[in-house]
This record gives sequence, structure tokens and C-alpha cells, in this order.
Amino acid sequence: MNDPVNCFVPGPRARIEGRPGGPLAGLSFAVKDLFDVADIPTGGGNDDWAAWNPIPKRHAWAVARLLDAGAELIGKTITDEVSLGILGENAFDGTPLNTKAPDRVPGGSAASVAAGLCDTALGTDTGGSVRVPASFCGLYGIRPTHGRLDLSGMLPQAPSSDTTGWFARDATTFARVSEVMLGESAGPLPTRLVIAVDAFGFADPEVATALQPMVARLTRIIGPAREEIMAPQGLSVWARAQRTLQPVEAWHTFQIWIEQANPRMAFSVAAALIAGSQVPAGEQGWASLMRDEARARLRHLLPPGTILCLPSTPFPAPLRGLPLSELRPLRERITCLCAQGGLTGSPQVNLPGATVDGAPVGLSIIGGRGSDSSLIAVAAAFERDGESHS
Amino acid sequence: MNDPVNCFVPGPRARIEGRPGGPLAGLSFAVKDLFDVADIPTGGGNDDWAAWNPIPKRHAWAVARLLDAGAELIGKTITDEVSLGILGENAFDGTPLNTKAPDRVPGGSAASVAAGLCDTALGTDTGGSVRVPASFCGLYGIRPTHGRLDLSGMLPQAPSSDTTGWFARDATTFARVSEVMLGESAGPLPTRLVIAVDAFGFADPEVATALQPMVARLTRIIGPAREEIMAPQGLSVWARAQRTLQPVEAWHTFQIWIEQANPRMAFSVAAALIAGSQVPAGEQGWASLMRDEARARLRHLLPPGTILCLPSTPFPAPLRGLPLSELRPLRERITCLCAQGGLTGSPQVNLPGATVDGAPVGLSIIGGRGSDSSLIAVAAAFERDGESHS
Repeated sequence: MNDPVNCFVPGPRARIEGRPGGPLAGLSFAVKDLFDVADIPTGGGNDDWAAWNPIPKRHAWAVARLLDAGAELIGKTITDEVSLGILGENAFDGTPLNTKAPDRVPGGSAASVAAGLCDTALGTDTGGSVRVPASFCGLYGIRPTHGRLDLSGMLPQAPSSDTTGWFARDATTFARVSEVMLGESAGPLPTRLVIAVDAFGFADPEVATALQPMVARLTRIIGPAREEIMAPQGLSVWARAQRTLQPVEAWHTFQIWIEQANPRMAFSVAAALIAGSQVPAGEQGWASLMRDEARARLRHLLPPGTILCLPSTPFPAPLRGLPLSELRPLRERITCLCAQGGLTGSPQVNLPGATVDGAPVGLSIIGGRGSDSSLIAVAAAFERDGESHS
Repeated sequence: MNDPVNCFVPGPRARIEGRPGGPLAGLSFAVKDLFDVADIPTGGGNDDWAAWNPIPKRHAWAVARLLDAGAELIGKTITDEVSLGILGENAFDGTPLNTKAPDRVPGGSAASVAAGLCDTALGTDTGGSVRVPASFCGLYGIRPTHGRLDLSGMLPQAPSSDTTGWFARDATTFARVSEVMLGESAGPLPTRLVIAVDAFGFADPEVATALQPMVARLTRIIGPAREEIMAPQGLSVWARAQRTLQPVEAWHTFQIWIEQANPRMAFSVAAALIAGSQVPAGEQGWASLMRDEARARLRHLLPPGTILCLPSTPFPAPLRGLPLSELRPLRERITCLCAQGGLTGSPQVNLPGATVDGAPVGLSIIGGRGSDSSLIAVAAAFERDGESHS
């Protein structure tokens, strides 16, 4: 198979047949180049990372899980450098094509699924790297409950926020893969729907408008919705806490490599790590308390059987190749709608189905910790509802 | 000619014959890859710099000067990334061999001259990148009076400190090249010698001891020496002022490139630029005043006919491949002996002739602004004295 969207890492393609007869037989998958595949260097999106680290001897847990279930690995996809970034632009390996919006960034590893080169793909979501590309590429995508899946063999960034997620083009495939990854079949459907009005208010007005028919579909499935503020302290305050805690942990993750190897990295990546090294202890302490408040808020909003919906991103994918001065405020606005994932560890699923100016943008549903399979059930019902009303 | 010391930039070698019959006929030279050579990309030691900048249409002033005088260009040499660094280690192009001390860093572009591949080479000295490699590789090398030479076509770093310098293995070649570059023949010899006792006290004791016979040679040429403190405010205070002003200017030099291209760079280089972007205005104001004080001090110490001598570096070349945590304090100690160049703009020449543990280390002479040709005359007399006493 060739690589029409430049989504696979340069060099020979990693290909491994799945175990015959498993539940995912017939499905193909790609893995972001942050996951170990035995006997193949884990690139991490940075040439000096691959050179510094030994070639892994075993598969990452998530890779082994899909292979054991019968899916076929067809390649490793380009990642943001050492997972720092959510827009999928990489100076070492190139930037994949977003086939749904070719002049815009793909947002991570979703490009291979969006282009139809494979049925699913493994990604990572620390600050949004599954939810954001799913929104930008028009895919189903899940950030599972933090701590639920085994992350061994996945290149870490900020362990208190790191998760393994996956993408699919349709809800049926999404449910098949999710059942294997979560070890649990889809369901039950939630019975209460909450609309995060602060998040809808924060998104671009055209995005909020474009998502309304999707919210209406959710109400047909679940029942009338209630409006609530998700983050009473402020979405920007939650984002500030996440943007304090995550870089501090990332600095600790990569500090030894940096000190020993003085690696090359994109300026923006170095800047994020240096920012993490410079956070005063008092700021860290405050951010940690705000994380506790955010967790308490979502526990209050999301008792069993309740889900919250919000725009996955405040806008569709930005254009490719923007200067840093224009990218920085866009990233910060994205974090305002994504911070709850890293802060609270709640599971979140992106539902595709809307476009603005022809570019995809998604609606997210969030449930209480451990409710991942209910969100998968909503995705399936959501797709069925769309088909019956189209 | 091959490249046994890995000192030339990868790719086809830049070679240009000199103008026939000029005063430098028969000499060959290399140029650090920060100088423009017409129709050849200026690499700047960073792959993303070369990709972002247009191919120069004309030679840098210094390159044209040597070619017009009849010297032959034989290649472009590896530089620290965008000139930020003084130890000659480069993650993009590789690190040249210091033939005088093969397990140690070369310190910039001097490796080609030290290895005998050419007779002279053009370097740049903002914070020490001619003086330090000359010391580490056992070469004559000059940082001319700031502002004296035309820097057009030389990649800038911190304009208030940037200079173009050159290296040679022997004082005769050094004088020939210097006469062309300075537009002035060597001389007159100074008549008073001052020893910078604070600088000798700051160097490693073995370095101070190893340099004593060289100081004795200077007294035979010039007369009895007087001991003085060079930096009454402290060598570390002068270094602090230079390490404040230089990164601020470097940030301004590279900011547009960084914002537009988000280039890859070694972590240490990004860290230096980010530090420059973060200096508070009050610190800049203080550093600027300390620069005024340093200039006043050297004007007082160096009336016409007087030169100052000091160790060029506090130690010989560090080992190759040290981790950043070990390199940082070494760089800071080097800056304590080099800061006067960037702060005051005084000319400084490294004289080779001592070794510690078999590795070269040099003695520097500094004169008042504009006294460059007197320093060249001292170098010539110094070499003659060495030959007559050996």
C-alpha cells in the first residue's frame, strides 16, 4: 500500500498479521509512532529520540491487544514530536494530509484512518491528541478513562494525564475495536444529557450553530437536555491548571534525555519543555488544587447515567504552516475545551457529523470515570439515529 | 582533498580560485558556514536555516577580501548552530576532530587549519568563537576591534558584539592574512605589558603555570610586566553582563525566523534563545551600564602602547560529548575569561605555545580599540623569540 497522505513514518513499513480468527479479523490498524512495535525503532517523532533509545524487544500492550484480536498492523504513523503538540505538524517526518480538509492540519495520527488506509489507529491523548484530530478529521475517537488501560510500551509524556485512544470512521468499527480495547461490550445508554453552555459559548459561533443538529440527535436518543456550566471557575482557569501541570510532568519525563543528548527539537517543543522546567512550586501547588476542584465538579455533574456534551474544539482545523505567533493563541483556545480530560481523567468520545466552511468539527460526550462503554453505546445509537433521519 | 577531520559541511565542497598575483597567492582558506559564498546556501549549522533563507548572490565582504588578495577557498566548515555555542559540537553536521587533542572538542571552525587542510580560515567571534577554538587547537587567532571590519554577508548573532576573525598555524601567515584583512601592516610593538592577575587566578592552576613561560617571552619582547586586576567588578560580573546582553540581541536576530519557521534546533540553542527572550528590562539596563564600566576600565588599563595578557580559556578543550549538565558550568567559566571582548570591543589575539595534559591552551593579548596591528606585531615577535630560544 502506498502513502498518498504522507501519514506513515519514513523508512520500511511496519506490517504484522493479526492472530487468525480473532474478533477483529479483517480489520487493519496503524499505530502512532509513540507505541513500541517489537524490533522496530520507536521514532517518537524526533530523529534524536530514536537514536538515543534502544530498539524495543516487545510490542506495547495496546499493539499486542489489537494483534491478538486479529487486526493487522499496516504501519506506524507520524506523531507530533515526543507527543508535544496536537496539530500533527512534524519538522522531522513531515506533516500528513488531512484528506477531509487538505489545506488544514490533520491533528496527529488520525490522517491514516480518515484517508481510508486502515480501519482504526492507536493514538495518545494527554492534552487532546485523540479528541482534537478526531474533531479535525471527522472521525469517532475516544480518550478512555485515565488509568483504565495498560500504557506499557507507550512513550509517556505527562503520566497523570496520558491515555491511549483510537479512531474509526464508523460507529460499528468503533464499537468492535472498543470492545477489545476496553474488555467490555458497549452499553448501557445513559439517561440524562447535560449541555456544557460555557463550552458552547466559548466555541466559534459558527461551530456552536453547526453542532446544534447533533445535540438534537443526542436528545432524541437520551431525552431532554439540561444546560449547565461545566467549569464554574472558568474554562481558561482549568486550561491554566492543565498548562501548568502537563509541562512540568513532561519536563520530568524528558529531562534525562535532554541533559544527556542535547537533542534537536522544534523550537516550540523546546519552549514548552523549558516552560515546564520553570514553573514555580507555588503555581504547581495551585494547579494541583484546581485539578481537585475540576474532578469534584465533574463528579457532581456526572452521576451514573449522565453524560455531558460540548464542542470538541472551538473551531475546525487551522490552516497548515501557520507561524508560531498565530498558532499559540489557537492552541490555548483548544486547551480551554480539552483541559477537563487531563485534569479529571473522565472518558470522552468525539462524534463526527458537522462541518464549518467544509471542514469537519466534532461534538464531544463525556461521562463519569469508568463509563467508557456507555459512551461507545451512545456513538452507535447516534450513528443509527443519523441514518434513520437522513 | 578529502576531509579526514570531518570539518567541512556535508555536500559538494565550495572551491573558488583566488585572484592571480595577489599578496595571498599560494595560500588556501576555509570559511565557517556563517559566511556567504555566492551561489552556495549558507548553512548556518542548522538544516532549517539553510532551507528558510535564499541562496546568497554575492560573497561576504571577508570572503571577497581574501579571494581578491589571491587566497584560494577550499570549503565551508561546520559551525555551531547559528553561531550559538563555542565548543564546535553540531547535531546537524557533526563535530569536527581536534587533531591536537582528538578526544576533546575542537571549538568551532579552527579544526581545518589545525589539521593542516588549509592555511587560514574565517571565523566569527561574538562571545569567544575565535579565541576559544584558537586556544583549544593551538593556533594564532584574532578577534579584531569591534566595528572595524565590514560584516556584510556574515550571519549575525548579537550585532553589538559580533566580529569576523581568522586563524593561522604560524605568525608569518597570520601577519600576511591580517595585513590584507585589516588593510594595515603589522606594528608598532607595544612598550608596556600588564598581567591580568584576576584572570590568571581564575584559570585552572595548571593552566596559569603552563602559561608562565609564554608570559616570560612577552616580557623579553616588551619589557617588565605590571600586575593589575582587569575586572574590578568581578570577572563573573562582566560575564553576567555579557550573558545578559548577548542572548537578548540573539533573540532579536532570530525571532522572526523562529516565529515563522518553528525551526528544529539543539535544545541548548533553543534554551539560550528563550533565555534571551525572557530577560527583564531592568536586567538589560543594568548589563548595559556594566558594559560602560568595562569599557571605561579597559580604556584606563590600555592607553596606546600598552597590552594586557591573560589566559584565553580557563582550561584546555573539554572532552567531546559531555552532558549539558557538565557543559553549562564549563561554558560559564569560559565566558568569565571572554566577556571583555563582547563588552568592550577591544581586539584580542590568541598566542599558541602551551599544553596541559597534552592539550593546547593559549595566552591572549588585548590592546586598546584599533590597536589590532600592534597585536599582530607582538605575535610575530613572540614566534621569533620562541624560535631563537628553542
